[in-house]
Amino acid sequence: MTVYQATTSAPVNIACIKYWGKRDTKLILPTNSSLSVTLDQDHLRSTTTSRADPSFKKDRLWLNGEEEEIKEGGRLATCIKEMRGLRRQLEDQDASLPKISGYPVHISSRNNFPTAAGLASSASGFAALVASLAALYQLPTDASRLSLIARQGSGSACRSLFGGFVAWQMGEKADGSDSYAVQVAPREHWPDIHALICVVSDDKKGTSSTSGMQRTVETSTLLQHRIKHVVPERMQKISEAILARDFDTFARITMQDSNQFHAVALDTDPPIFYMNDVSRSIIALIVEYNRVAVANGGKLKAAYTYDAGPNAVIYAPKENIKEIVELIVKYFPQAEAFKDPFGLFGTQGVKGRVVEGFNEAVAKPFSVGAVKGLIHTRVGDGPRTLGAEEALLAEDGLPKKL
Amino acid sequence: MTVYQATTSAPVNIACIKYWGKRDTKLILPTNSSLSVTLDQDHLRSTTTSRADPSFKKDRLWLNGEEEEIKEGGRLATCIKEMRGLRRQLEDQDASLPKISGYPVHISSRNNFPTAAGLASSASGFAALVASLAALYQLPTDASRLSLIARQGSGSACRSLFGGFVAWQMGEKADGSDSYAVQVAPREHWPDIHALICVVSDDKKGTSSTSGMQRTVETSTLLQHRIKHVVPERMQKISEAILARDFDTFARITMQDSNQFHAVALDTDPPIFYMNDVSRSIIALIVEYNRVAVANGGKLKAAYTYDAGPNAVIYAPKENIKEIVELIVKYFPQAEAFKDPFGLFGTQGVKGRVVEGFNEAVAKPFSVGAVKGLIHTRVGDGPRTLGAEEALLAEDGLPKKL
Repeated sequence: MTVYQATTSAPVNIACIKYWGKRDTKLILPTNSSLSVTLDQDHLRSTTTSRADPSFKKDRLWLNGEEEEIKEGGRLATCIKEMRGLRRQLEDQDASLPKISGYPVHISSRNNFPTAAGLASSASGFAALVASLAALYQLPTDASRLSLIARQGSGSACRSLFGGFVAWQMGEKADGSDSYAVQVAPREHWPDIHALICVVSDDKKGTSSTSGMQRTVETSTLLQHRIKHVVPERMQKISEAILARDFDTFARITMQDSNQFHAVALDTDPPIFYMNDVSRSIIALIVEYNRVAVANGGKLKAAYTYDAGPNAVIYAPKENIKEIVELIVKYFPQAEAFKDPFGLFGTQGVKGRVVEGFNEAVAKPFSVGAVKGLIHTRVGDGPRTLGAEEALLAEDGLPKKL
Repeated sequence: MTVYQATTSAPVNIACIKYWGKRDTKLILPTNSSLSVTLDQDHLRSTTTSRADPSFKKDRLWLNGEEEEIKEGGRLATCIKEMRGLRRQLEDQDASLPKISGYPVHISSRNNFPTAAGLASSASGFAALVASLAALYQLPTDASRLSLIARQGSGSACRSLFGGFVAWQMGEKADGSDSYAVQVAPREHWPDIHALICVVSDDKKGTSSTSGMQRTVETSTLLQHRIKHVVPERMQKISEAILARDFDTFARITMQDSNQFHAVALDTDPPIFYMNDVSRSIIALIVEYNRVAVANGGKLKAAYTYDAGPNAVIYAPKENIKEIVELIVKYFPQAEAFKDPFGLFGTQGVKGRVVEGFNEAVAKPFSVGAVKGLIHTRVGDGPRTLGAEEALLAEDGLPKKL
């Protein structure tokens, strides 16, 4: 008997132009366009197996081995329903196709990074879900078309359906049919963009991005100006910078837009803070690192960006990552040795040091644990279809024990 | 022989609508109007003695006993020159007046609060300087007229020439002649407004407000919107709230404008941070304290505001101050007993506790020293002319030894 099953993985993406605010909370239509870099699935990914089987009683989903309820009308149910609808259209057009759209599905999904890392897993998770259902249902794979559906699971998930540099065009229509992701450039266009994720310790439970962004829409008097007059120009300029591989402009806009996102969060009533003193110190280090570079006649060498949490993501050309790791470790000593996936440090390991001319007084050293870990990765590709040996469902249709 | 000398004190003021940005850096003309509460000189003040004497060799000034250079064309020189010019006009009109405008002056000024408290002393300092010269020169005392001159010493000093609730009208003219302070209401109108200053420890030297605000003017894409579209309406509404003694509206606008000032500082390139994790936690405490009040059918009970530093100033009706001190001390234990100038606590002292229904998880307790001290004060009066016994210059024209 045929097993209808597919396994895919999807990447994390970190925005340079931030998504913050919905004009339609049900369809997840944003108040502004956004742009992100897709990170390499070799390091960070969500993997999802979907199986359709007439013997299943109902649709079920497991996340990291724990079953999640698929609430009627909820985001998971919406994505599954939309994908099933596309399958049904195919079946209606081609009578030779097996009628698997009528079967219940079992879905098992895992992230290869710990939740404690504070990395948003909803983007890679919903992208992997949609990609895996697209493979299961053998849908013609137009990533922009799929991004319309992933968007309804989690807004930023739509950008994880592409590799490289990805724009989410906000669109104008009330039904959301023009609010989807497009690829600005594939990773092969600019593979030199690397990323260092600084996982920052935080005691406080922050405001969720879903509730936080709507409070900003309702109460910030600055957000409307950002939406109408700042983001459109930045989208244009950063896209041009990516096409021209102009890191200086890319970095400048990325940092400005991270700051502005946190500024409108602070302009919210009551105010929302995602960055803490550790985040602020990392900003001070990167500002000083860039200042030295520019003072020596060069250009910007790194760009920080912060999502809705205290973690820093530092984008930089590969050649600068070694200096940046040394810099961060100097101020934020690590409990564990740096995992060096690109072999930058050989056998010597990281010493912790600053570049010549660096003003060490811009921040004070923290104790071990303030930055819990460092992850070195780079721009990556879009969702991958994996072989049966990587499936997360066992023969019985339940999640494999790991 | 007649001694021409006068001693005055002037108050600190803390803005509710923040001044941030100059359209003319020499004349100190702001990009937006601002509004502040003058604090009681019984607790915080600058005191200045000015003497004019033909035996003096040149103008000299001492601040807290240390001589400061009066740089030609600098802010001190400008204020002294302008005041002397007003005196000369009087002398020209009335030949019976002694010609003291031609004498050099010696000026001694002291703040009764330590510099380490992190309270901006330039506002009270320049207000006391101008008020003391006005008394020395026996100028007709129109505080708005004097505020034009104090403004050229330090922008916010113009607001310290009035007691109560004070607006600095930005004006439009290029010569600055319509950029002065006016009193919205005297302290007697609403004497119930008290203030608790939380002096926050900070390791980092922050960006000076003079350089910081101009970087914001040059690089923030949000500041122009604030200036044109947000501040004018807030100035109108908070003035109405003061006249109506409407603390709820007063508090709401005060907190929103503090947040927006820090938001445009963050939208600056590179970003400027004045608040730290302690500041953020105090905000969380006041937000929760207000939430409980509103949940119980009441109105806002306190308003935080932050200037260009990590210190919190909490405005509240007098009846709430006891609860607020208990709340702050619960999370920020104090090394020294609370100085209780209004006798709120009797002999029991402060225990540190929260009001009923307060969610204690909104912040975590800090260790002793995170908040270095608490100062309880209230809305106060304008500059005071003091008796000769309070003079800060000795007979020899040099600062008295304290």
